[in-house]
Amino acid sequence: MAPIPKQTQQWTLANKPTSHPVLSGDKATFKLETQSLPELQEGQVLLKPKYLSNDPAQRGWIAANADPERLYVPPVQVGEKMRGGAIAEVIASKAENVKEGSMVSAYCGWTEYTVASAKEVQPLPEVEGLSVTHFLGALGGTGLTAYYGLLDVVGCKKDDVVVVSGAGGATGSMVVQIAKKIVGCKKVIGMAGTEEKCRWVESLGADVCVNYKSKSFQDDLKKALKENGGADVYFDNVGGSILDLMLGSMKMYGRIAACGAISSYNHEEPTMLKNYFNVITQRIEIKGFIVLDLFAKGKMPEARQALVDAYKEGKLKIGDENETVVDTKFESIPETWVKLFEGGNTGKLVTKLV
Amino acid sequence: MAPIPKQTQQWTLANKPTSHPVLSGDKATFKLETQSLPELQEGQVLLKPKYLSNDPAQRGWIAANADPERLYVPPVQVGEKMRGGAIAEVIASKAENVKEGSMVSAYCGWTEYTVASAKEVQPLPEVEGLSVTHFLGALGGTGLTAYYGLLDVVGCKKDDVVVVSGAGGATGSMVVQIAKKIVGCKKVIGMAGTEEKCRWVESLGADVCVNYKSKSFQDDLKKALKENGGADVYFDNVGGSILDLMLGSMKMYGRIAACGAISSYNHEEPTMLKNYFNVITQRIEIKGFIVLDLFAKGKMPEARQALVDAYKEGKLKIGDENETVVDTKFESIPETWVKLFEGGNTGKLVTKLV
Repeated sequence: MAPIPKQTQQWTLANKPTSHPVLSGDKATFKLETQSLPELQEGQVLLKPKYLSNDPAQRGWIAANADPERLYVPPVQVGEKMRGGAIAEVIASKAENVKEGSMVSAYCGWTEYTVASAKEVQPLPEVEGLSVTHFLGALGGTGLTAYYGLLDVVGCKKDDVVVVSGAGGATGSMVVQIAKKIVGCKKVIGMAGTEEKCRWVESLGADVCVNYKSKSFQDDLKKALKENGGADVYFDNVGGSILDLMLGSMKMYGRIAACGAISSYNHEEPTMLKNYFNVITQRIEIKGFIVLDLFAKGKMPEARQALVDAYKEGKLKIGDENETVVDTKFESIPETWVKLFEGGNTGKLVTKLV
Repeated sequence: MAPIPKQTQQWTLANKPTSHPVLSGDKATFKLETQSLPELQEGQVLLKPKYLSNDPAQRGWIAANADPERLYVPPVQVGEKMRGGAIAEVIASKAENVKEGSMVSAYCGWTEYTVASAKEVQPLPEVEGLSVTHFLGALGGTGLTAYYGLLDVVGCKKDDVVVVSGAGGATGSMVVQIAKKIVGCKKVIGMAGTEEKCRWVESLGADVCVNYKSKSFQDDLKKALKENGGADVYFDNVGGSILDLMLGSMKMYGRIAACGAISSYNHEEPTMLKNYFNVITQRIEIKGFIVLDLFAKGKMPEARQALVDAYKEGKLKIGDENETVVDTKFESIPETWVKLFEGGNTGKLVTKLV
């Protein structure tokens, strides 16, 4: 077994942000610290994170106004290590089923090294042509969110007309592909914020992708839905005014999978719904969900296998465009993370520790 | 067979209101007109409405901004008879199963007489101790809305902690009783707008009823839910800020039956949800519904029988307090109807034609 380091650097939460996270100064959100590492016990592994997952949900875990009783996982407290998913190398193992030198996914947090129970790590299959980083994105939490939301939460079927917001993002781009290529939906309409992203979303299989920053956006959406009389399913990655627009664009008995409201993470603005009344008149169903429920139900391995199989059958395009991998020194982890809220990425934002 | 009148007076829609309905002058919402009556055909009945149902939904049918494709029934057009439910006497019948002299419920509209197909009328059972008017309220659309919303839409069970807004109203007071006395829910919390209404709601079986006009309302609600950690079911009769408060007061996987948003009928204000994000973090399900779906499914007779049976078993209190019956001349039908939006009634507002 490799020698175990006695110490590790890690980023801890220094100040809970009330608005945008702060990168430096007295009110900096995060702080770099050195911590000692415990001895490795039977059943444990020592992990060295190689790639970090950057997720909007992390913003919620450190929110100043977070109500611990209402978060789906406990908040990160001041002084604690910043939480986050990672792809890590197993540096040392005292667990039979996890091999030294193998790559695993685990919630390592922002640390150089961490000791974890073997039960908390997921060994990663090797898939030809796929970078390991995709197990943070297309085949990780984001792809599974798309799969779970579409298939389990709103029971998407072939006959459905599906609209997806944030279709150029990590989750949305997988929703488009799963709806079109795995479920075989009648029509899939994406929404994205640039013409370039829209064309990319169409190349993934969307029948059409409309640009929500275009002046003709509302008309473009109306036109896309016209022959179908509205949407059966709306996969909502953004909340806010686009959710409102979609409440006015659903068919009778339409189903909305409420997955994200990224626009509200760093703001305290309420969601204003001029079309709320449609929930009643159109008998709309809005269902909030979180991919952790898929894990809790024990259905994660099965769902990931379905995605890996679909990839192998050529149904899913997973490549460089599904992720933005940013080479990052350990000292710069927060700088890469805040790029999440700048909206410039295509696909999953991954921190590669260099 | 009784002689058939050749003409009838009726109220027609004169101007679609943009805000509050107008009772007189050039812009009056309604107009009194005389119309000829058709000959009675085989299978038809001649009805004389004795009691009219007053329902917030009628406001939607005449809205200036109503989108016909998005209403659950077609809007009433200018020049057409105002639509509405009624209890009517059968004056003449050419249908075997509907007897002259019997009382039926039907969508007669605001008219002295109307000719209807026998298929469109519901004969009313005689129940000892019950006024026929209750078939417009507690045993009519409002009671059935409560029954359908609680049992079918959100599948309410014994273990549930249920919150009901508008609990002093026609639907809400039935929700309280059905939840407590038919389902046997663990806890039922009402919300109403005066201390007097709150005490009445408690007398119907609510464990507690909180006054939403009280300064301590939010604390009172929090206190009522504290030992349960939130609500499992929220039956929403009002929308708006109380819906928002409840989004922050639901347990994980809470279910919301979205039944009404009376506060928005006469206004164009958007629904502002500061707590929308809880839909996702708490995996809340919001389901809009309309009692017409119960009728469309053919389950109405069965549901009404369940309510009649529960009444006979002493489980439901249905009495004067479930309705406000207003003696009204035919010329004054609109004046009684607008009382709906003044919020002063306890229970169902019924127009008695005198």
